Amino acid sequence: MASNLDLVNEADSFPYHNDDKNVYRFTVAGVPAILGYITPPVRDALRDLPHWQVNDSTQTVILTGGSNREERSAIMKQTLLAMRDKGQFQLLKKWRDEDFPVYGERKEVLLTFERCASPLFGIVTYGVHAIAYKPPSVDGEQLKIWVPRRARNKQSYGGMLDSTVAGGVASDETPFEALVRECEEEAALPREFVLKHAVAAGMVSDFYIRGKQAGGETGLLQPECHYVYDLPLPSDIVCAKNDDEVEEFNLWTVDEVKRALANREFKPNCALVMLYFFIRHGILTAENEKDYIQIVSRLHRRFEFPTR
Amino acid sequence: MASNLDLVNEADSFPYHNDDKNVYRFTVAGVPAILGYITPPVRDALRDLPHWQVNDSTQTVILTGGSNREERSAIMKQTLLAMRDKGQFQLLKKWRDEDFPVYGERKEVLLTFERCASPLFGIVTYGVHAIAYKPPSVDGEQLKIWVPRRARNKQSYGGMLDSTVAGGVASDETPFEALVRECEEEAALPREFVLKHAVAAGMVSDFYIRGKQAGGETGLLQPECHYVYDLPLPSDIVCAKNDDEVEEFNLWTVDEVKRALANREFKPNCALVMLYFFIRHGILTAENEKDYIQIVSRLHRRFEFPTR
Repeated sequence: MASNLDLVNEADSFPYHNDDKNVYRFTVAGVPAILGYITPPVRDALRDLPHWQVNDSTQTVILTGGSNREERSAIMKQTLLAMRDKGQFQLLKKWRDEDFPVYGERKEVLLTFERCASPLFGIVTYGVHAIAYKPPSVDGEQLKIWVPRRARNKQSYGGMLDSTVAGGVASDETPFEALVRECEEEAALPREFVLKHAVAAGMVSDFYIRGKQAGGETGLLQPECHYVYDLPLPSDIVCAKNDDEVEEFNLWTVDEVKRALANREFKPNCALVMLYFFIRHGILTAENEKDYIQIVSRLHRRFEFPTR
Repeated sequence: MASNLDLVNEADSFPYHNDDKNVYRFTVAGVPAILGYITPPVRDALRDLPHWQVNDSTQTVILTGGSNREERSAIMKQTLLAMRDKGQFQLLKKWRDEDFPVYGERKEVLLTFERCASPLFGIVTYGVHAIAYKPPSVDGEQLKIWVPRRARNKQSYGGMLDSTVAGGVASDETPFEALVRECEEEAALPREFVLKHAVAAGMVSDFYIRGKQAGGETGLLQPECHYVYDLPLPSDIVCAKNDDEVEEFNLWTVDEVKRALANREFKPNCALVMLYFFIRHGILTAENEKDYIQIVSRLHRRFEFPTR
């Protein structure tokens, strides 16, 4: 049985004070910011490539080619496609043709890159998560939460539990736009209803070291920002399986969700989003959770990378 | 006009990477944890006192006397009373005979100390804040928030705006007990109502460098954890002045509160609690607040000190 703090430690597993000399910083020539962290297999794959410079004395990997967003994005794409063609990283087999942005200190987009490649460069990714729930009723029925189970055959986190709706924010949309789109795609929730009733409720961030369940290479680094939304549903609106990503939707009591968390059935970052829901709704409190302060502060990790 | 990020920077003003060699760490003999930060005037007042050791090579101030909670607390009290009698720190004139706890790594209370002295040792303090509000009505009346103005003659933050109810958590009560007590004392809110309707909603933490408005010596260090509660009030329950601490209660729209924030009318840590309310209730969003990610993560500072 995992404690809630165990769940935080497992999802936010990268140390706060990194002193691993094998973790190199990813930068872009002429831009002082650190944009991500690169592990040895990726560093070595970039060594001696045109447009790239690996500096072992400063432990830095520098994209030297390109001087604007378009040029850098094109070089990045060409680099990744060449790696894929050489069969270098399993992750690259999941190429989706979805662009994710990398931001600089002034929140400008420095480059975009293929979504599936983000863990190779340890770049911050942005997602949206909604927790849909049936509020407690006046006649005493307790709050219930819509919890989907991921399809068993998914390569990443197959069969695990998820946030009601979750997905990535692409480089050409806002978080709220991504949320409305995902609610329709993943849970068949009516667009007009979501536009009117979804409530932005903050952000959860973590720095994850990819394990086996993630699929593909392990040990890659994944700093993540999750925009979080609450979506109270009346009885006549239900979440329904709408694609092959989801096996089923369950409408569970808080106790059922707590048991599944303790059993480590949730995808690691979705466990954090659920804990944050519990904290905001008075379910986890200073009185019933001994690690309350640690958990609340750990749910909102600061990165040394510029963010959106 | 202050931006919301300015307000965060002003309340959470101590640097994340402190390299000021004049800030000494407060420890207790035999306990490996760092318990607080001490500035030069306090360090020098403790130098050569019995039961204290100032180590300039490790930049540490050690309470060497006492081997358990009671003995350490007694020595701390005796030290502080002696300082007060010598007229050494203005802060000590506000002696309240309220005990605050200092926790160790296993959440055990290592000692307690007089509340007004906490900034002298840079020790983490624990408070409760409730935001009472009138929810939006079905006929379209918008959400309004109960905002008190502190009495003009208060030495600390006189005339500034505050959380609806705020106070310290003493060493013999839980945060929720403190909240119920303060709601009655400060806003004349019925105990039974608060017990039933206050919702725990998380925690805000910051590391403040005391400025002029705080009263007493400036430059002292104050790490703070604020347990945050939401208190939705029906129309027939109002907040009312119940002691001399409050000048008046206002029932304000979100726009009125936003203006007061931008005018820096809120006590610094209460501005953070209000921003967190705005974030949880979909008032500040990724779309309307350019510094959204920075603000959400900065509202929950991690300390290197053990906490409750």
